[in-house]
Amino acid sequence: MPTTTYTVTGMTCGHCVSSVKTEISKINGVTEVDVDLSSGMVRVDSTTPITDADIAAAVDEAGYEIAS
Amino acid sequence: MPTTTYTVTGMTCGHCVSSVKTEISKINGVTEVDVDLSSGMVRVDSTTPITDADIAAAVDEAGYEIAS
Repeated sequence: MPTTTYTVTGMTCGHCVSSVKTEISKINGVTEVDVDLSSGMVRVDSTTPITDADIAAAVDEAGYEIAS
Repeated sequence: MPTTTYTVTGMTCGHCVSSVKTEISKINGVTEVDVDLSSGMVRVDSTTPITDADIAAAVDEAGYEIAS
């Protein structure tokens, strides 16, 4: 079960965390999303490998960005 | 048509603004709620006078506080 981590910038509150979680959770195969607001760290568990592009698109949809 | 202004602390993003607007808008008689994120200023228009306690309760419900 793949686990990948990303750093998301721009989240300022619990609502932001919820938005990011919701969008990433919609990706097919994603089983769990953990977000740490203070560090911006996002951990994604999935049944199959998820592409970085899919994660980036979900984070963008939520209104935030993956730190490059 | 009474207009009152308050300063709400703790809002950090557009989601916070939405939460405060939503809760205050539920108060009977409220016709419009304007929120300025950077200053925390909240302007409430209503058909009848709204008590500060009602506003404070709505802001609290949203998860924020009126600046004292």
